[in-house]
Amino acid sequence: MEERLRVGIIGAAGYTGAELLRFVVAHPRLELRYVAARDNAGKPLEEVLPGTTGTSFGELVLESFVPGDAAALARRIDVAFTTLPHGTSASVGAALFDAGVTVVDLSADFRLRDCAVYERTYGPHPAPHLLERAVYGLPELHRDELRGARLIAAPGCYPTSAILPLAPLLRLGLIEPSGIIIDSKSGVSGAGRKPGHPFADVAESIRAYKVGGTHHHVPEIEQELSLCAKAPLNVAFTPHLVPMTRGLLSVAYARPTQKLSTAPETAVERCREAAIELYAGGLVSVLAAGKLPDTLWVRGSARAHVAYVYDRRVDLLIAMGAIDNLARGASAQMIQALNASLGFPDALGLPELGLSP
Amino acid sequence: MEERLRVGIIGAAGYTGAELLRFVVAHPRLELRYVAARDNAGKPLEEVLPGTTGTSFGELVLESFVPGDAAALARRIDVAFTTLPHGTSASVGAALFDAGVTVVDLSADFRLRDCAVYERTYGPHPAPHLLERAVYGLPELHRDELRGARLIAAPGCYPTSAILPLAPLLRLGLIEPSGIIIDSKSGVSGAGRKPGHPFADVAESIRAYKVGGTHHHVPEIEQELSLCAKAPLNVAFTPHLVPMTRGLLSVAYARPTQKLSTAPETAVERCREAAIELYAGGLVSVLAAGKLPDTLWVRGSARAHVAYVYDRRVDLLIAMGAIDNLARGASAQMIQALNASLGFPDALGLPELGLSP
Amino acid sequence: MEERLRVGIIGAAGYTGAELLRFVVAHPRLELRYVAARDNAGKPLEEVLPGTTGTSFGELVLESFVPGDAAALARRIDVAFTTLPHGTSASVGAALFDAGVTVVDLSADFRLRDCAVYERTYGPHPAPHLLERAVYGLPELHRDELRGARLIAAPGCYPTSAILPLAPLLRLGLIEPSGIIIDSKSGVSGAGRKPGHPFADVAESIRAYKVGGTHHHVPEIEQELSLCAKAPLNVAFTPHLVPMTRGLLSVAYARPTQKLSTAPETAVERCREAAIELYAGGLVSVLAAGKLPDTLWVRGSARAHVAYVYDRRVDLLIAMGAIDNLARGASAQMIQALNASLGFPDALGLPELGLSP
Amino acid sequence: MEERLRVGIIGAAGYTGAELLRFVVAHPRLELRYVAARDNAGKPLEEVLPGTTGTSFGELVLESFVPGDAAALARRIDVAFTTLPHGTSASVGAALFDAGVTVVDLSADFRLRDCAVYERTYGPHPAPHLLERAVYGLPELHRDELRGARLIAAPGCYPTSAILPLAPLLRLGLIEPSGIIIDSKSGVSGAGRKPGHPFADVAESIRAYKVGGTHHHVPEIEQELSLCAKAPLNVAFTPHLVPMTRGLLSVAYARPTQKLSTAPETAVERCREAAIELYAGGLVSVLAAGKLPDTLWVRGSARAHVAYVYDRRVDLLIAMGAIDNLARGASAQMIQALNASLGFPDALGLPELGLSP
Repeated sequence: MEERLRVGIIGAAGYTGAELLRFVVAHPRLELRYVAARDNAGKPLEEVLPGTTGTSFGELVLESFVPGDAAALARRIDVAFTTLPHGTSASVGAALFDAGVTVVDLSADFRLRDCAVYERTYGPHPAPHLLERAVYGLPELHRDELRGARLIAAPGCYPTSAILPLAPLLRLGLIEPSGIIIDSKSGVSGAGRKPGHPFADVAESIRAYKVGGTHHHVPEIEQELSLCAKAPLNVAFTPHLVPMTRGLLSVAYARPTQKLSTAPETAVERCREAAIELYAGGLVSVLAAGKLPDTLWVRGSARAHVAYVYDRRVDLLIAMGAIDNLARGASAQMIQALNASLGFPDALGLPELGLSP
Repeated sequence: MEERLRVGIIGAAGYTGAELLRFVVAHPRLELRYVAARDNAGKPLEEVLPGTTGTSFGELVLESFVPGDAAALARRIDVAFTTLPHGTSASVGAALFDAGVTVVDLSADFRLRDCAVYERTYGPHPAPHLLERAVYGLPELHRDELRGARLIAAPGCYPTSAILPLAPLLRLGLIEPSGIIIDSKSGVSGAGRKPGHPFADVAESIRAYKVGGTHHHVPEIEQELSLCAKAPLNVAFTPHLVPMTRGLLSVAYARPTQKLSTAPETAVERCREAAIELYAGGLVSVLAAGKLPDTLWVRGSARAHVAYVYDRRVDLLIAMGAIDNLARGASAQMIQALNASLGFPDALGLPELGLSP
Repeated sequence: MEERLRVGIIGAAGYTGAELLRFVVAHPRLELRYVAARDNAGKPLEEVLPGTTGTSFGELVLESFVPGDAAALARRIDVAFTTLPHGTSASVGAALFDAGVTVVDLSADFRLRDCAVYERTYGPHPAPHLLERAVYGLPELHRDELRGARLIAAPGCYPTSAILPLAPLLRLGLIEPSGIIIDSKSGVSGAGRKPGHPFADVAESIRAYKVGGTHHHVPEIEQELSLCAKAPLNVAFTPHLVPMTRGLLSVAYARPTQKLSTAPETAVERCREAAIELYAGGLVSVLAAGKLPDTLWVRGSARAHVAYVYDRRVDLLIAMGAIDNLARGASAQMIQALNASLGFPDALGLPELGLSP
Repeated sequence: MEERLRVGIIGAAGYTGAELLRFVVAHPRLELRYVAARDNAGKPLEEVLPGTTGTSFGELVLESFVPGDAAALARRIDVAFTTLPHGTSASVGAALFDAGVTVVDLSADFRLRDCAVYERTYGPHPAPHLLERAVYGLPELHRDELRGARLIAAPGCYPTSAILPLAPLLRLGLIEPSGIIIDSKSGVSGAGRKPGHPFADVAESIRAYKVGGTHHHVPEIEQELSLCAKAPLNVAFTPHLVPMTRGLLSVAYARPTQKLSTAPETAVERCREAAIELYAGGLVSVLAAGKLPDTLWVRGSARAHVAYVYDRRVDLLIAMGAIDNLARGASAQMIQALNASLGFPDALGLPELGLSP
């Protein structure tokens, strides 16, 4: 049996923490050694996450982590996943990084390259010097930087769903970088284990929120799409809350360039080819022409689905991406990114097929 | 007690039929006298709609209607609501109309003014001569034509949700008529009582369908918005299926005109004023600035909610409309339209407050 | 137009408060004059319950009520509905009752006749002297006491769903009073507007809770069933939480007596007859033999559905009751009880047909 | 790398077929070689199950299987999972079994030992001679028979959820075998990919069905519990449909024997010990005293959860079992049973932790 990396999860009791657990215990090259949680230290995992009852790891006792413990913890684990609120997560991550641990951070703290943008969006940054060390953990777009990376920043769930369908088009100049509108729909688990979404107020409800470009994921989407377009761009972005637990669908509207629209009947094929080429070796499935993505098809899966439609009547290219916000939009993508940093295949240890239904 | 109009519902066993029943039996000036259904003739209502068990109307026996019965039926009822599949509905409606019955048709058959557009969308029309007699039953926009109308066409649910927020803006020239993108999200009851949406395939799923302007509601939206803009226009339209039973939210993206954007900070206020003015006396609530519509707030209600946001970063006006697709999007709107044709207040007999939650 | 009673709702912002609002504004003999809420005093209703935006009552401003205001409030309203937490509700109700207002209390405070049982279940009672004045507001079983009553106690939702199917059988001695097992399933709105049931923890989940007779509704069920049986009895009771907003189904298992089982093939008919007779004039529908209740059929409706099955293999009578927990299980039942106290028909102003679907 | 068994799935397009796929492709000792489906032969898997798009197995083409192909297929696969309707499944299974293939049958065809009982429940049996060869695939109760078995019958989902909590108690005589009442609640996927449960008719609905011992799973439950009790017994059984996709909770009410009730305060502990002992090495988690099972905790997992409560007031033992009906209630249990037949650990290749949430 090959050697396994020793893994710790700091923030194991939240939604992304539990999802990480699911992937780590099934991974052939990782071994769960350490779990920590702010509020439940001292309790066995099975008391906090009853789904672990009776398993070999259900008896692991949740510990309490403070940055001062970093050196000690560095002797017990090789990799730390941190799933703490922004601000806190960077402090913890910085301490562990400095102590030699590979840090995979699922907060927003290391996603933005420009500290000024971070501080406008989230407030003061506790470890700005690490921003240039962090790699944006979207493996299909940052594979070279990820190789050997020791500080990996988890992309946000909305950005993942929006960037994946648009990136190939912007890279090849098939759509205009300006005027892109992204209309996204997310299940409620994206907000984490907070008491903010009572069932009776969410079921039978669809609503937009933070309309008008005020969502904190906007700068992150613009950062990555600007990199693809090799020029700064702004997007319109409307997030919605959908009465379901998991799943995120982004539908983006963009103006085709001459490059695409000179042959409208093949516009979809051209987009699909661009995506198939860019995503070779990754975990993005390009749907057949005429198939449209459905979040149910990726529930629990590490894969993203993308698809394209061209509306000739109004000359718009419609690019769509569907993911499971907790899996590809958070925890599975971080296993994929860790795999990429270690030189493993992207899919190692990850479920490529979700629950159906 | 004032005299009541005698009402029949043809197609009482479907979703919109049952919803009509709910409103007719509660209406102070209507009296249910006749119910018909294709597949369940001879059965009492309570066998087909068990929710009616024990009520005074639960023992009404469903009859079978064919156009040849129109003259006889005209002696029993004053008003017929028809909720049949398109094509069939027009034949039935035409026979009843010719026999002197007031016809309120919930199919698509009398919505489109241009028969050629109808036939491209739905196939041959069985009563094209009636298209010019039919009034599009959106009372806030067609109040004058509705007064005394004897043939009323129910607007589609998607069109209702999209037209209501956009109409005031187009009428006043606050947005550009070209380039409008409408991204709509509907509960599954919009498709009627068909076996097409099994629970396990819909729950935890959001998906777009008929992307690219191919939905049959596109011509209807364009017809009405063109009337508002006093010029032909095309829209991009993307419908989505949301895992909920009722509710429809449309989010429209439009380019402000000089008229609106010369004073961006007051753009939302300008749009709200336009809507408040246009919708006085109707059943459209204009939400306070900063409030965003939620389908849960209108579930079971005859009211529509509209709201506006201006995104200065990308210079877009975002107009939103939320309705209950079976109530305001179909059956309640037809009671409202009948009220308007009879000179009653729009809200007579209708619930203005829905189930919460 | 006949005179309307002036109504106040104290606790208008909660789930049962909003549901009362729905019924009061539609009632031909009631007029909403006063709304109060603990946390939102000073705000218009439409800010707290956005579904009221644009209605005539949406601009009513929520007031703050303390028992010292009772005399002043008594000049403004004839009837007060109180929907406060237990303990608090009795204090408020007592002050208003003493000031001459008719009080309809939706808390648990006036449901139990035996103060000792109340205090074991809920803690100290602030107005024990009123327990003998209060009438248990289940109109079909306490119609005589309700006539002219000025203090009406709302039955709990679980008790309503369980008592209705069992009462006729116990009254006629068709089932053994001992050994009854009640297995109940409730939507989450039964717990009120508390942040205790996040969507992601409730969807795709069914679970029992307070198993083993520890739920606080057990003494209430036993009180009423003992009255029916004319002898004290105990029941086994298991409540469950179901991933839906509204709806409550109770399935009760009981041993038939000789009276019923001497003619097993007619057992169901005998139970139905007993229920039909007892519930004449009320709002309980007895389903046809072979039909089983479904909470969807009563959603939003004031009616309860009951049904019976006899399992000859194991000699058990299975009695089922379905209600909407917020309507028949709380607010609609209190309108019905007020109707009964005033001598109006039970159904006056109430929807007998719910949303379907 | 160790040798892998070559696996075929006949009926791969249904819910249990897709769930088998999920487990087979993740299993270290199985290799998917063959998929068949009645209606979609000739299409690649990714066209029928779009969740497989982009995976290595998504391009497998569905074949069409008839019993005459058994000998040819026996050269291509070692193990066949059959998920066909009852009657058909036995014919297919018999042909493959005779051709030397190990058959794991997910229909009801090989579950019942008594052919007369089968025929009363399901109709004529096409291969009655194989009933004595088939092993009931509940590994924790039939481990010895499973070792080396070549014909394995999948337990039904309701039976699995009800037998697991009750078996330890009946085996040790802790509860009376007569008078057991089982009240079960299932998600809708238990009915398979049929158009029978439209979303709008299921959401916001809970209902019992086949009340009174008429469900076809009753004989199976009685067969297995009778084996545990070493005496024939009958149960009352009430299945319910819950508005969720996956999950099954059974709550059973039983009378304690002297053996259990002589020390009531320790009754729960005694039941837990019995279960812990019986389920050592298996995939059943016995929850801590005071914890109650929740279907959400086992969603997607191969594990069952059981728990016990004693209600002293009415002297009843309440035994509860929760499973994912598609995983532990069908496909995962069959992988577990195949593992047991091959001498592998029960959990090999199976997810012990489900999606949370």
